[in-house]
Amino acid sequence: MSEKRALLQLYRPELSLLTDLYQLTMAHGYWQNGDYDREAIFHLFYRKNPFKGDCAIACGLDTVIDYLQSWQFHREDIQYLGSLKGNDGRPLFDESFLNYLQRMRFECDIEAVPEGTLVFPHQPLIKVRGPLIQAQLIETALLNMVNYATLIATKAARIVQAADGDTVLEFGLRRAQGIDGGLTASRAAYVGGCHATSNVLAGKLLGIPVRGTHAHSWVMAFSNELEAFRAYARAMPNNCVFLVDTFDTIDGVRNAISVARELRSEGHKFLGVRLDSGDLAELSIAARQLLDEAGFPEAQIIASNDLDEYRIQQLKERGATIKVWGVGTRLVTAYDQPALGGVYKLGAVKGPEGDWHYKIKLSEDPIKVSNPGSLQVLRRFEQGQPVEDLMINSLEESLEPEAGQQPLLQKIFTKGQLVYPRPDLHQIRRYSLQQQEQFAQLNIKAYPCNLSAPLKARKNQLIEAQQFQNQ
Amino acid sequence: MSEKRALLQLYRPELSLLTDLYQLTMAHGYWQNGDYDREAIFHLFYRKNPFKGDCAIACGLDTVIDYLQSWQFHREDIQYLGSLKGNDGRPLFDESFLNYLQRMRFECDIEAVPEGTLVFPHQPLIKVRGPLIQAQLIETALLNMVNYATLIATKAARIVQAADGDTVLEFGLRRAQGIDGGLTASRAAYVGGCHATSNVLAGKLLGIPVRGTHAHSWVMAFSNELEAFRAYARAMPNNCVFLVDTFDTIDGVRNAISVARELRSEGHKFLGVRLDSGDLAELSIAARQLLDEAGFPEAQIIASNDLDEYRIQQLKERGATIKVWGVGTRLVTAYDQPALGGVYKLGAVKGPEGDWHYKIKLSEDPIKVSNPGSLQVLRRFEQGQPVEDLMINSLEESLEPEAGQQPLLQKIFTKGQLVYPRPDLHQIRRYSLQQQEQFAQLNIKAYPCNLSAPLKARKNQLIEAQQFQNQ
Repeated sequence: MSEKRALLQLYRPELSLLTDLYQLTMAHGYWQNGDYDREAIFHLFYRKNPFKGDCAIACGLDTVIDYLQSWQFHREDIQYLGSLKGNDGRPLFDESFLNYLQRMRFECDIEAVPEGTLVFPHQPLIKVRGPLIQAQLIETALLNMVNYATLIATKAARIVQAADGDTVLEFGLRRAQGIDGGLTASRAAYVGGCHATSNVLAGKLLGIPVRGTHAHSWVMAFSNELEAFRAYARAMPNNCVFLVDTFDTIDGVRNAISVARELRSEGHKFLGVRLDSGDLAELSIAARQLLDEAGFPEAQIIASNDLDEYRIQQLKERGATIKVWGVGTRLVTAYDQPALGGVYKLGAVKGPEGDWHYKIKLSEDPIKVSNPGSLQVLRRFEQGQPVEDLMINSLEESLEPEAGQQPLLQKIFTKGQLVYPRPDLHQIRRYSLQQQEQFAQLNIKAYPCNLSAPLKARKNQLIEAQQFQNQ
Repeated sequence: MSEKRALLQLYRPELSLLTDLYQLTMAHGYWQNGDYDREAIFHLFYRKNPFKGDCAIACGLDTVIDYLQSWQFHREDIQYLGSLKGNDGRPLFDESFLNYLQRMRFECDIEAVPEGTLVFPHQPLIKVRGPLIQAQLIETALLNMVNYATLIATKAARIVQAADGDTVLEFGLRRAQGIDGGLTASRAAYVGGCHATSNVLAGKLLGIPVRGTHAHSWVMAFSNELEAFRAYARAMPNNCVFLVDTFDTIDGVRNAISVARELRSEGHKFLGVRLDSGDLAELSIAARQLLDEAGFPEAQIIASNDLDEYRIQQLKERGATIKVWGVGTRLVTAYDQPALGGVYKLGAVKGPEGDWHYKIKLSEDPIKVSNPGSLQVLRRFEQGQPVEDLMINSLEESLEPEAGQQPLLQKIFTKGQLVYPRPDLHQIRRYSLQQQEQFAQLNIKAYPCNLSAPLKARKNQLIEAQQFQNQ
């Protein structure tokens, strides 16, 4: 089954009310004012790299595409909106507005950076151009879908980088935030570079490889550990990783080795042991030695227990012999920074005469000042290596990239019609890993992200004008 | 529409694969060993109160009920499982096991504390009794559904308590973790005591009151703030809260007052202003004064911007005049502790002779040692006030509560059949608020949670026996 259909299979398409109420009250306002059809341009971006890091891995576009393809106010959505009352007890929304909503069909242009792209603060991950009312109504859902997925893909990339070539398994379902918190996390973690997941539904729906063997409860259900390992080996001889820390880890490794010898004598391969508590560096070194001495140099040591990129790095510095890292809670909840903080800001809106009015959001905090116009990012390459990201305003600058420049934003919808050949999840993951590889060779902290001269001039002009506007 | 149907409407019922792979490999193992039908008892509980707090508010049971009611391995689940391979390239699962899975129907007994119950560490939120294989297979989904919902209901209760009688609105959808991360958060926040949500889909599907007016983008779409407020007032005269910080907050309050006078002259009520940046304590005091002087003492000051219980308390200590608190990111992601860490542990399993074998999970960390048996919690009341929670093992102690004792766990499923009259969401919220009120009058830090003498003796006996078992 294609991944595209999979997500739709899980969610019914009635998601047009997946929005904040104020999007609908503003939509009502634009409609009442006759402004609803003015063409507007919004950008979805984040301002600060998550996890005090140097970049992010864009993710979530696939869900956005599913959502926008089925975006429509259904009869029961309209009935619900018609039931809402204002503070005077009268309906919040005019009936004629609700009729308009029900007839409305999605007709925006959407550009976006492909999933897996390595991005920097202020670069638009999505650009929406279309009727003001539509661009406004989809804001919340787009943020919901992109914020979390990008956060987790980025976290996964950091963990995979810390694992330095080792295998990373995503084990987070039980601590993930609801059913699709778990599924979205499994998908985003795979995009970021994880190798497999424990989440079987993610395996079925999304085609992500699945991994897992047994838990402490398996061992506890038997009268002792050796018996438990033997029973597991009899039942699943081709998937034997033994969890060795139910009682005492070193005793557990010895029991695992006993059963591994039996497995070998029956022609099966013993895969390794999993450590889930205690000092993982010390225990892995001791386990490695026991396994090697017993003639199992290929048996792997797998570890889990509140791991993340910081702990993996520490364990490696201490000489841990772990080759497979199972990461759960701290990955799927992005424990040390559980929200990306992406925003959606107006860049320009057409006036009644058809001329563009540029817009920026001012703030005392310079990092919070948005960029005006219709933004595109050109990534310049020299000898195959990225050397500069240049943000331009395509309303004032040529969109034709020069040689060696690659535009990051691609056309996804044109006038509401999907025009993007959606890559499959495995292609997205490969692209993400390529992107990470490209930048791994650079000093990413010094990588230049610049505004074009016309964009900078336009921005400064707006800052000055707005500072006087409200006085 | 009933809430029960609402969640099922959103999710297709094919969720039996929403589990970790190791649950299936263990199930396969139990099946191969002929142990699959042994009766087992598992408890779902957490070990440590979240947010360094004193309790938690149980939540998530409703989703668990939906899940268990439709728990069944469908043909395409079985096909997917049949496609998985072990390390020797042969199928991971026997065909006869897969046939067994497909025929299997849920037949466990489930007991649980009702949603909204105030609970303490180690108390079972859910108890599962039934065939070992089934009790094991549902573990991950139960944890996924209960962990996050309980975390958010608890966070919401803390925020509502800090707000001390003020209104609390949940505004988190854009930063929530996926589509149902947002919906589950809205529901759990409401159970915890929030008054309304911005999430319109949660309003439609769950009947939660919705709130919201306009964003910065509304103001930016006009040529100045006064014009923007006027346009909003014309369009939505019965829902007028103006967001006043797009340019300068105090200027914004003045513009809001101008439009409020116009509203009043047309017979409409001005609801208030929203602050979303800057020093909220200082700005709210200044805004209050301006509003009072202008003759709008009933206009409310609403605040948002990365709020949580800590910030609300600080703002109140500094004299903030805010009466409505909009909380988003830090509520729905449980920012300062984004995972509850609930676990699911085996308490007892029947031997071949039909006798119960008690089980505990040992750990060097005493807080991680589980309780054996089939647990129930009796909450004892004196003069209507809770005075002690006593955990008992119902396999060895009478289940008949004494006068003044209330069992926390109630029957939900008997032999796979739902026997619980599901309360609606508003009843759950009222119950949760009553629970919070009951304990608000106590010194909750000193509230006694004890094990019965027989349970304590059984636990100690198992600890001693297990410490020798593996040597």
